[in-house]
Amino acid sequence: MNYREQSLIKHKQWKGKIETVVRVPVDSREALSIAYTPGVAEPCMAIHNDVEKSFELTRRWNTVPVITDGTAVLGLGDIGPEAGMPVMEGKCALFKAFGGVDAYPICLNTKDTEDIIKTIKIMAGSFGGINLEDISAPRCFEIETRLKEELDIPVFHDDQHGTAIVTAAALLNALKLAGKKIEDVKVVVNGAGAAGIAISRFLISFGVTNLVICDLKGVVCEGEEWLNPAQKEIAKITNKGHIKGKLADVMKGADVFVGVSGPHCVSKEMVASMAAKSILFTCANPVPEIEPEDAKAAGAFIVGTGSSEHPNQINNVLVFPGLFRGALDVRASTVNTEMMMAAARGIASCVGENELSADYILPYAYDKNAHRAVAKAVAEAAVQTGVAKIK
Amino acid sequence: MNYREQSLIKHKQWKGKIETVVRVPVDSREALSIAYTPGVAEPCMAIHNDVEKSFELTRRWNTVPVITDGTAVLGLGDIGPEAGMPVMEGKCALFKAFGGVDAYPICLNTKDTEDIIKTIKIMAGSFGGINLEDISAPRCFEIETRLKEELDIPVFHDDQHGTAIVTAAALLNALKLAGKKIEDVKVVVNGAGAAGIAISRFLISFGVTNLVICDLKGVVCEGEEWLNPAQKEIAKITNKGHIKGKLADVMKGADVFVGVSGPHCVSKEMVASMAAKSILFTCANPVPEIEPEDAKAAGAFIVGTGSSEHPNQINNVLVFPGLFRGALDVRASTVNTEMMMAAARGIASCVGENELSADYILPYAYDKNAHRAVAKAVAEAAVQTGVAKIK
Repeated sequence: MNYREQSLIKHKQWKGKIETVVRVPVDSREALSIAYTPGVAEPCMAIHNDVEKSFELTRRWNTVPVITDGTAVLGLGDIGPEAGMPVMEGKCALFKAFGGVDAYPICLNTKDTEDIIKTIKIMAGSFGGINLEDISAPRCFEIETRLKEELDIPVFHDDQHGTAIVTAAALLNALKLAGKKIEDVKVVVNGAGAAGIAISRFLISFGVTNLVICDLKGVVCEGEEWLNPAQKEIAKITNKGHIKGKLADVMKGADVFVGVSGPHCVSKEMVASMAAKSILFTCANPVPEIEPEDAKAAGAFIVGTGSSEHPNQINNVLVFPGLFRGALDVRASTVNTEMMMAAARGIASCVGENELSADYILPYAYDKNAHRAVAKAVAEAAVQTGVAKIK
Repeated sequence: MNYREQSLIKHKQWKGKIETVVRVPVDSREALSIAYTPGVAEPCMAIHNDVEKSFELTRRWNTVPVITDGTAVLGLGDIGPEAGMPVMEGKCALFKAFGGVDAYPICLNTKDTEDIIKTIKIMAGSFGGINLEDISAPRCFEIETRLKEELDIPVFHDDQHGTAIVTAAALLNALKLAGKKIEDVKVVVNGAGAAGIAISRFLISFGVTNLVICDLKGVVCEGEEWLNPAQKEIAKITNKGHIKGKLADVMKGADVFVGVSGPHCVSKEMVASMAAKSILFTCANPVPEIEPEDAKAAGAFIVGTGSSEHPNQINNVLVFPGLFRGALDVRASTVNTEMMMAAARGIASCVGENELSADYILPYAYDKNAHRAVAKAVAEAAVQTGVAKIK
């Protein structure tokens, strides 16, 4: 029985992957008078007099909703808010298991950008941070940007930045093994959607200078008529040689390939045309851009995929629990690039020099040390960049 | 140290009265593949093909948000969404402790009726029911009415109906002790806000025919210029004698007084002017309409209050956990009057004939048998009235 079949059976048995529990006594007259009325009026008034106290007197400090509109769920696409729930619940379970964060799944029955922004802003006072999930491009860009501007709690679109952070972590360790410097390598990113653009932007923050993005229509190049607004923006800081053409053209001589695209769009010939000690992260799910054994056969030095079936899973489960743990611990007002870079370095640092190999460049998703390392690094970066309210 | 002081100290220690826990294994590659990707795609697609399956494959079947806009919190008034959170969290704790319901507190930063309705409708696919809380009148009427019309899950404004149900339960038992029939008694309800109007309407469903509502401005009577729209509606089915005047006028000869008004607005003289074996439910919080000892001294037969400090606490904690438990268990599409009447009878039935006394007309709020009785009665009424999807 495959994972999907097993999963359906288990979900029927489980009837939910998270639940709430009560942390305080409520089993006597006395207890009710303290946890509820009449006593509860006092913490209410304390918060009324100083809203910041909502982070001390309620669970707000540790609570993050996982919010989707169900438009870009896994590789399944726009399946609707209710159908997105099993993923969101799973995410909430991982938030708690690996980050100690209390997360609630909230699936929104609207695809309207303004409605989504407004709904989240109206609820934001209940939460310590906001995790956006599986919202399709280009709406996800504006939704995240606006919420970051208009809220004073961390807002994080995991599909963009979680993927970017874990990819960067993988790349840092892979380049160490390959003996290459990030400033020197040529990177090709295939897939110019939300994830591809976020990965490209983030790798550039890390020092990549030679980066080209491709999409089904070809290489993203300034002036191409088919570019959407997000692609036009990223075209300004990538593909400095103004190369036009197809994926096969830019793969030639590339050191690194990052795929967030579709099944089997990379051939053995393309891999063979790459530079020596080539690195491929083929993250398309469930079928990668090229099967790992084919890539290896064609000369790839290191291969990572989105799947747990192969070595080097590039899995953003390594990111979000620790990232929010760190941000919440210091009451960060945002998630900035420095915090995300710290998260990537934190993940990379969890693979020791003597453990590092072509088949082990990232810690496992369920490695609690990795999540702790991310939390610590993110909290420190928040304090250093002045966005932490608790030091 | 009083309850409010103790409560503040405890809330600082607790840092939240509820939290989430993980119900499934996620601590291995295998486990992650089933609870999360890639396996989770299968339950997602099952729901995509049949949205009703969201009640079987996720926690939706057991999940209810406690939603407020912070405008009518306890007796504190409009203290804002964040300041309402300690009450909402407390409510969520009671939902779980007494009803087994997973409840999330969501405080909305808007007072706009349409915004509140829209926000809740957008989120509704995540939940098995909606509990509205501490939303001020008259907005609470339209918000609940519209949501009941437009959603196919139970929607319940606790301040209106929870209070009405527990008051009716108390009255059923009090009348039994007094040897009076509900059809024969004269009832005065003081306070023509959301709770007073809901109580009046509900007692009329139970057979009360002689009922008069008062407010600060006087008796609610058809044609009075000061009536708001909700009061105009209730005036049509109350005060059949078209009495005008003040509270003291209508208290004369009354069998039952229900106060959801303000502190010390009832005098000993008013109580003395009531009929023999008078029943007073003085629910104003934290200071009742008249102190129980004063009411007793003036001749009251049975006194109930909103406080746990005195006998006969008229506490809607007896209602909402069991009511939602019952509604969720049979996947009710709404909460109708029959279900609410069943809840009231269920609560009343928990005080045995030989236990019933002037100081014990209601079970205690933390009596789990009472919550079970409510759940059972509500589920049966839902099935009988044809609003249950599970039989």
